[in-house]
Amino acid sequence: MPEIPATMRQLRSLVTPDGELRLSVDTVDTPRPGPREVLVRVEAAPVNPSDLALVLAMSDISAAVASGSADEPTVTASIADPVMQALAARVGTAVRVGTEGAGVVVAAGESPEAQALLGRTVAFLGGATYGQYCLASPRMCLPLPDGADPVDGASSFVNPLTALGMVETMRREGHTGLAHTAAASNLGQMLNRICLADGVPLVNIVRRPEQAALLREQGAVHVCDSSEGTFEADLVAALQKTGATLAFDAIGGGRLAGQLLNAMEAAIVPPDAPYNRYGSDVHKQVYVYGVLDPRPIELRRRFGFAWGIGGWLLTPFLARTSGEDLARMRQRVADELTTTFASHYTDQVSLRQFLDVDTLRRCARQATGQKFLLRPQR
Amino acid sequence: MPEIPATMRQLRSLVTPDGELRLSVDTVDTPRPGPREVLVRVEAAPVNPSDLALVLAMSDISAAVASGSADEPTVTASIADPVMQALAARVGTAVRVGTEGAGVVVAAGESPEAQALLGRTVAFLGGATYGQYCLASPRMCLPLPDGADPVDGASSFVNPLTALGMVETMRREGHTGLAHTAAASNLGQMLNRICLADGVPLVNIVRRPEQAALLREQGAVHVCDSSEGTFEADLVAALQKTGATLAFDAIGGGRLAGQLLNAMEAAIVPPDAPYNRYGSDVHKQVYVYGVLDPRPIELRRRFGFAWGIGGWLLTPFLARTSGEDLARMRQRVADELTTTFASHYTDQVSLRQFLDVDTLRRCARQATGQKFLLRPQR
Repeated sequence: MPEIPATMRQLRSLVTPDGELRLSVDTVDTPRPGPREVLVRVEAAPVNPSDLALVLAMSDISAAVASGSADEPTVTASIADPVMQALAARVGTAVRVGTEGAGVVVAAGESPEAQALLGRTVAFLGGATYGQYCLASPRMCLPLPDGADPVDGASSFVNPLTALGMVETMRREGHTGLAHTAAASNLGQMLNRICLADGVPLVNIVRRPEQAALLREQGAVHVCDSSEGTFEADLVAALQKTGATLAFDAIGGGRLAGQLLNAMEAAIVPPDAPYNRYGSDVHKQVYVYGVLDPRPIELRRRFGFAWGIGGWLLTPFLARTSGEDLARMRQRVADELTTTFASHYTDQVSLRQFLDVDTLRRCARQATGQKFLLRPQR
Repeated sequence: MPEIPATMRQLRSLVTPDGELRLSVDTVDTPRPGPREVLVRVEAAPVNPSDLALVLAMSDISAAVASGSADEPTVTASIADPVMQALAARVGTAVRVGTEGAGVVVAAGESPEAQALLGRTVAFLGGATYGQYCLASPRMCLPLPDGADPVDGASSFVNPLTALGMVETMRREGHTGLAHTAAASNLGQMLNRICLADGVPLVNIVRRPEQAALLREQGAVHVCDSSEGTFEADLVAALQKTGATLAFDAIGGGRLAGQLLNAMEAAIVPPDAPYNRYGSDVHKQVYVYGVLDPRPIELRRRFGFAWGIGGWLLTPFLARTSGEDLARMRQRVADELTTTFASHYTDQVSLRQFLDVDTLRRCARQATGQKFLLRPQR
């Protein structure tokens, strides 16, 4: 085992009371594992949209300013007043960031589960993977095959289990098809591969023609582009063909969730059906799992009374999942890590490079196909 | 048995393609019961908000015009263009109206269940109770005690079972308290009486001081008035005291449903809790069961990810209810018909009187405490 330094670098995101975001790479004490914990030397950690949301705090990153030293860089950016209200609870706390990653277990608590992982290369779920070292629970570690590159395992949890969780939720709640917004994302492409493999009808909803083309190249059958004038009719037609009555929505603001419910209802009720003021009795559901659009959700109800919309998150989903089902899902991820669940990174950067203002702006754009991987040891 | 006339009077509501509502009392053939049906001579039928919504079709009733004859009166009113879009499916069909009522079974099909009701005075659920005769399923008939006044039984189904269904839903879904909007309605007062009797903590949400006073007179403990400047803080405090994480909302448009979710979250998360971008893990639910406000539902999300909002209707709820549970609920309604489940009518009118323009306007106002009862035999 290499020696563990007493201090380490860690990325932190602070919202100040006067409406400023302050990102910094701080030098902090290296944590020590408790009895049932392991300490991972983080080799690779992906920048998922949910991580980026926490890092950037909806600040105006286009006008961000760099300060600090080369060794301890700092970036500041202003946050609009209405956004500050929503962030009230995090003002004044330098938040640690990073949901998942991969690396080597360099220290372990006394419990057998923790000890069993010592020296192993693992993918893991943690709360602060954007640092050189991070604590993790053995339950949330996936040992990688000997000789595996941590880069290949860095995104083993959030996107793979979220995509599998969507299909699992569909089955549990009695639906037989899915719709998905922001479908050209890394997660969306993964979901498309799962649905193609499992024969689950999927409606992919994107916002630009190039995203539609990208999904079609990957074999997607039903793709609807909201930038097309025919979007609403296309959506009804695709929902009719697939029978999808469940949608997962990453956008979560504006009218799209309501459009989905209305299109599902239109796909269910034949145009010449007798009038029923309560709508069809087929339950239509939208789960919102992201906040790509921070505006309010606006529901224009033409979808009767058999409908629901709600939040969906990976952690509570996993908490409702049996050990057996979870093991099955994790095994599939391990087996198909470089195929179905492969992630592609366009940029690999150190913590300090990440805080370069141009890099940050590029990352914040969240362009389709672009994905950043942090390399905290660099 | 009195003779059954070949034709009868029936109220109908028609939306014409050129954006006009046309209400009429038509002379139509008296229906004949099928093998498993009964024919009820309707003595009394309440005007519930859901019935009124179907009758009025969101038309501009303030500018309604009377025509037709004294024997066959007609009222016309214009419907705004955006509303017409939502009504597309009912254009051109003269819709029959009236969800429930009470009367005497004057004819019955061959089935033993139907025959058993012949001659009985029953409360019943039907699809066209605003007429002199109406078909019903024996399953949806509640025989009243001998000598009972049909007026007392006219509202035995919709409001009582809806109010009981709310409490039942709360228990089934693991909540321990309720919030209710438009709480001063007949239904709201009923729910308040049930919750007081059963020891269920209830937050009553009203829109005017006189409604708050009315509920307090009836023993309501938690009343929040949205016209008060302190409404949001009052709501959080009441939700905290009651632990209510489930709300039933009759309004269904505008910001109230989102305010409820935000207030529930604020009641759950202590002000000094550490920041969690995903919010609390306590599930917060709003069921929308009405459309008092036809505007879009606007959700301003500060309630984390453990939330849901959906439609709720009596009929699908009953379909999910076991025969045993339904029998228990119906028995309670029968036992407490003139106490817990008593309805008070301010106006009793014939079908023709109902189409008097002034009467219709007064009814459309849906003032607190005001409730109309139709007497089709008059």
